[in-house]
Amino acid sequence: MNVERLQEQLREFAEERDWVQFHTPKNLVMALSVEASELLEIFQWLTPEESAQVMSERAEDVKDEIADVMIYLLRLVDLLDVDLQGAIEGKIARNRERFSPGSDAS
Amino acid sequence: MNVERLQEQLREFAEERDWVQFHTPKNLVMALSVEASELLEIFQWLTPEESAQVMSERAEDVKDEIADVMIYLLRLVDLLDVDLQGAIEGKIARNRERFSPGSDAS
Amino acid sequence: MNVERLQEQLREFAEERDWVQFHTPKNLVMALSVEASELLEIFQWLTPEESAQVMSERAEDVKDEIADVMIYLLRLVDLLDVDLQGAIEGKIARNRERFSPGSDAS
Amino acid sequence: MNVERLQEQLREFAEERDWVQFHTPKNLVMALSVEASELLEIFQWLTPEESAQVMSERAEDVKDEIADVMIYLLRLVDLLDVDLQGAIEGKIARNRERFSPGSDAS
Repeated sequence: MNVERLQEQLREFAEERDWVQFHTPKNLVMALSVEASELLEIFQWLTPEESAQVMSERAEDVKDEIADVMIYLLRLVDLLDVDLQGAIEGKIARNRERFSPGSDAS
Repeated sequence: MNVERLQEQLREFAEERDWVQFHTPKNLVMALSVEASELLEIFQWLTPEESAQVMSERAEDVKDEIADVMIYLLRLVDLLDVDLQGAIEGKIARNRERFSPGSDAS
Repeated sequence: MNVERLQEQLREFAEERDWVQFHTPKNLVMALSVEASELLEIFQWLTPEESAQVMSERAEDVKDEIADVMIYLLRLVDLLDVDLQGAIEGKIARNRERFSPGSDAS
Repeated sequence: MNVERLQEQLREFAEERDWVQFHTPKNLVMALSVEASELLEIFQWLTPEESAQVMSERAEDVKDEIADVMIYLLRLVDLLDVDLQGAIEGKIARNRERFSPGSDAS
C-alpha cells in the first residue's frame, strides 16, 4: 500500500475543501472512532456465524466503512508525522514478548 | 507499507496463540472500536491547541494505540479478503463526486 | 426517573417485536456503544465554544441520541439485573476516595 | 432513580476538583463514548452464551463501567438541561410508530 501517495491525496482533498481547519488531532480521532462504530453497527445484531458471512450480504458497506476508518487514520498519521509501518512492527515485536505462544489472552 | 507481509505476521501470531477461534469478524470489529476509543481517551480532556501538541507529551501512547487500531483492521481485512488500498481509493473517488471543492461539510 | 417503569416498557417493546433473541448482553453493549458514537458524531467538528451552543442548533438530535444510549443501557441493566442507582452511588463513593478535591485528573 | 440528586452530587464533585473547565459538551460526549467502549471491552471475545453469564464472572467490572457511562451521561444532561425521562419517553413513542410489532429490524 502506498501510504505516502494516499496521505498526499487526502491532504489535497482536505485543502481544496478548506477542511484543514477542522482536522485537529482531537477531531480526527473522534471521526476515526465514529467510523469504527459505523463498522460495528453492521455487525451488532449478527450471530458469530452470520458475521462470518457478512461479505455475501453487505460487502460494499463493510468496505466503505473500513475505507472511512483508514482515511481518518491516514490523515491523523500524516498530521502527527507517525511512521505507520514502524509503529505496527514495533507493537507486534512488543506483543511477541508480552504474549508467549500458548498464552490465553487474545 | 507492505500490507501482505504485516497480515501474514499477524495471522501467524494469532495461530501460534490459538486465538483464531476468537477472531470472528464481529469480534475483530469490536476490538477495533475498543482500540479507537483508547486513542480517543488520550485526547478527551485536551483543548484543540493541546491536542496539536500531543506528540511532545504522549508520542509513545499515541503510536501504540494507532498500531493497535491498524492491527485489528489488518486482521479483519485479511479475514474478509478486502483489498485495502482499492477500498480507500474507491472511497476517495466517491468522495470527490460527493463533495465538490468549496462544499462546507467535512 | 421511574427506571422500573421504563424497563418494563422497553421489555414489552422488545417482546412484541420478537427482538429479545437479539438482546444478548454482548449485542446490547455494542448497540449502546454505537449510539454513544452517534452522539459523538454531532460534536466531531465543533469547537469547544460551538459545542456549548449545541442546543440552539441541534437540540432534537442531541436528545434523540441521548435517549438511544439510555434505552440500550436500560435494556442491559434489566437483563443483567443491575441496581442502576446503587451502581452509580457506589462509583461516586469510590471516586471520592480516589480523587481528593484539588487533584488534577478529571 | 433520583436523577436530580445524582446530578447535584456530580456537579459538586466536579466543582470541588475544578474539573468544570474540562466538562464541555464535546468532552463529556467523548468521555461517555470511551466508557461505553470500556464496557464493550469486557464482552469483546465472549461468545453470546458466555456474555449471558457475564455477571457470574465479572459483575463488579460490568457495574463499574455501567456507572461510568451513566455518570458522564448525567453530567451531560445536567449541562445541556435535558429532561432525561421525557427524552426517553418521546423516543419510545416515536419507535412505536416506526416499528410495528412483527417488524424485523431491531
